[in-house]
Amino acid sequence: MATTTDKDALLAQGKTAQAAAKQLARTSTEMKNQALLNVANGLETEQEPILAGNRKDYDTAKAGGMDDAMLDRLLLTPDRLLGMARDVRAIAELPDPVEEVIERKTLANGLEVERRRVPLGVIGSIYESRPNITVDIAALTLKSGNACLLRGGRESLHSNLALVGLLRRAIGEAGINPDVVQYVDNPDRELVDTMLQMKEYINLLVPRGGAGLINFVAASAAMPVVAGGVGVCHTYVDRTADLEKAARIVFNAKVQRPTVCNALDTVLVHSEVAPGCLPDIARNLSNAGVELHCDHRALSILGPEPGLNTQPATEEDWGKEFLSLTAAIKIVDSLDEALEHIDTYGSGHTEAIITSDADASSRFQRDVDAAAVIVNASSRFTDGGQLGLGAEVGISTQKFHARGPLGLAELTSYKWVIIGDGQVRE
Amino acid sequence: MATTTDKDALLAQGKTAQAAAKQLARTSTEMKNQALLNVANGLETEQEPILAGNRKDYDTAKAGGMDDAMLDRLLLTPDRLLGMARDVRAIAELPDPVEEVIERKTLANGLEVERRRVPLGVIGSIYESRPNITVDIAALTLKSGNACLLRGGRESLHSNLALVGLLRRAIGEAGINPDVVQYVDNPDRELVDTMLQMKEYINLLVPRGGAGLINFVAASAAMPVVAGGVGVCHTYVDRTADLEKAARIVFNAKVQRPTVCNALDTVLVHSEVAPGCLPDIARNLSNAGVELHCDHRALSILGPEPGLNTQPATEEDWGKEFLSLTAAIKIVDSLDEALEHIDTYGSGHTEAIITSDADASSRFQRDVDAAAVIVNASSRFTDGGQLGLGAEVGISTQKFHARGPLGLAELTSYKWVIIGDGQVRE
Repeated sequence: MATTTDKDALLAQGKTAQAAAKQLARTSTEMKNQALLNVANGLETEQEPILAGNRKDYDTAKAGGMDDAMLDRLLLTPDRLLGMARDVRAIAELPDPVEEVIERKTLANGLEVERRRVPLGVIGSIYESRPNITVDIAALTLKSGNACLLRGGRESLHSNLALVGLLRRAIGEAGINPDVVQYVDNPDRELVDTMLQMKEYINLLVPRGGAGLINFVAASAAMPVVAGGVGVCHTYVDRTADLEKAARIVFNAKVQRPTVCNALDTVLVHSEVAPGCLPDIARNLSNAGVELHCDHRALSILGPEPGLNTQPATEEDWGKEFLSLTAAIKIVDSLDEALEHIDTYGSGHTEAIITSDADASSRFQRDVDAAAVIVNASSRFTDGGQLGLGAEVGISTQKFHARGPLGLAELTSYKWVIIGDGQVRE
Repeated sequence: MATTTDKDALLAQGKTAQAAAKQLARTSTEMKNQALLNVANGLETEQEPILAGNRKDYDTAKAGGMDDAMLDRLLLTPDRLLGMARDVRAIAELPDPVEEVIERKTLANGLEVERRRVPLGVIGSIYESRPNITVDIAALTLKSGNACLLRGGRESLHSNLALVGLLRRAIGEAGINPDVVQYVDNPDRELVDTMLQMKEYINLLVPRGGAGLINFVAASAAMPVVAGGVGVCHTYVDRTADLEKAARIVFNAKVQRPTVCNALDTVLVHSEVAPGCLPDIARNLSNAGVELHCDHRALSILGPEPGLNTQPATEEDWGKEFLSLTAAIKIVDSLDEALEHIDTYGSGHTEAIITSDADASSRFQRDVDAAAVIVNASSRFTDGGQLGLGAEVGISTQKFHARGPLGLAELTSYKWVIIGDGQVRE
């Protein structure tokens, strides 16, 4: 792969990716799947160069004072590489979206009309520390017939370079031009600005990381951006909720992986059931180390019980994405009040209700304006892998083009194909 | 409707449209269809105020020196209003896209997962002279659960105000808040700049008009834009073409309505069949008043036959959208040469091939990168009405979100709805 020495080199990478994407759009499913299996094999059997690159990044980051949560996101282990290999194999097993006929009809005048999926072209991504994103995006773009131009975080450069080396080798061994995967190996910030203007070569840009990065990219990019990832996620425990399920779901949504976008931020509890369930919920969360920011009604229900990790909520707690072992708790008097709170403070990512009432469930499904609306399950399920997409390039909280996890189909467009026998318009 | 006195009034219209869109998203199909039928009835039985407004616009435009083609686009007649009524009735008969389930599956863990269509919110449109666009966009956005904020051309202001008056009255009589249709009745150009920045209130902007307007809007708008409409359309007559069909299709594609984006611009003819078909094609087009800009090989085939309206093509003719009775003609030696010419000069709108060869047809379908690829039929079929969409808000030549004619489904997004029974992530 060419080194991104400067702006011109980056532009050349874009042009190279675009040419490779045109070839890839016509490449057979078999060859693409073989490339993915080669990648998976490499992740299983050629781990040492990747782990060595990652150790370099990890040691530098640790010496630089990176906190433990971030260090954990950066870390690759033999087991994590095996997990990445499993994800790549899952993507190989998914149907190829390219050339899929998504609509077919015969018009009254005999014209046969189809809409067929086609790749978008070149997918750009700018992302932060987690090196597995490199493999997720490369695998999904490859399978969907797109090239990719990746720019990962400075702190994971050596990990990413080792992974990109493996990806390109594995792809080339399947007979596909390895230039479908391009990596910006120069961490110079000015090259990010260049990338944001390369609309001639990048058809879609997906930023992944914190709200600052995503907002900056969305505001500055010249090409279409699928923005998202910021998740202010509520779970509403309705008047009719099964309280045992509610406690289990709230605990899972907050504690199972608190640093990700679909983790719970605020629990809304109906006032009729709060006395019966909030003490259990709060005790379990406190025992798991969760700090609870409670409105005054929740505080008065919980009282001064020892061991509860509570404090009064402030206005800033509503609408905050905690990304840590912190949750806000608020008592509401009705479904309407819960809906209004979510409408005001949600980020349009994932909103959940725990209820046994079919009407409340229907209203919540209809009236909540979010990428994912979940009934009686953990918000943690808004995830491409969990929803059968194999993995995800990102999670969109916008309505345009695609919403929720971006899998293979979301990396395609379509063309109309109209087949006639001499038809003309009257 | 509030008058767009100034920037603040326009912002208020956006806010009003947004609130009305939220209500409309929950409005029944029956009520929306009743509103559309009311609109159609009004277009049939209350024509006088609309025709009067249009006469005012027409007289002013004529006195100002507008050319005949533009005057014809501006003109409304009783028959044209009946045609608009028919289109609105057709939209009433189409299925409601809102709440349509576009994917449904049950996961191994028992979660029931659906993707359900939801409206986008507020659709903005900035367009030029044709007043029927006002009704097309209002009808499609209403049926798809979206509000609209319209800004038509200054030259059709009185026509549009009369149509918007009818639309709002008809919608109100169906029990729907008429604020779902908003019109910018102040032709001040500065308000266009304001509109382009109203991303808080406009979810999608569709410019319709010449390339200048579309490019300006696409480059300046803060919200997502579906750009398109510019059509540099080729029809390639292959070595194996049925020459009688070829002549008929080329004639129709150029002459039936030369001022629209899907009209033919360039004919590419395979050199083996050019001597056999080009003279007929050229004679028919010349007789219909078409000016033919021919490459030197076409000129030498056609010779100095009297009555042929030919002249040598220049480099500017390739890739030009003529929008008039002009066509370029070029001889090619292979399908590959035709594909390369189209790749270089096409605008990604509509490309057609006339062929009897299944392999050539397949390659053309696969390799041409355009919104619509047509085999053995007129390029004029790339049209929402013709393709069963009822009408169209515009024709997208981009790959992002939607490609080709924008009908009801293309004015929606979707949400994921996930229904569980206590599932949590492991």
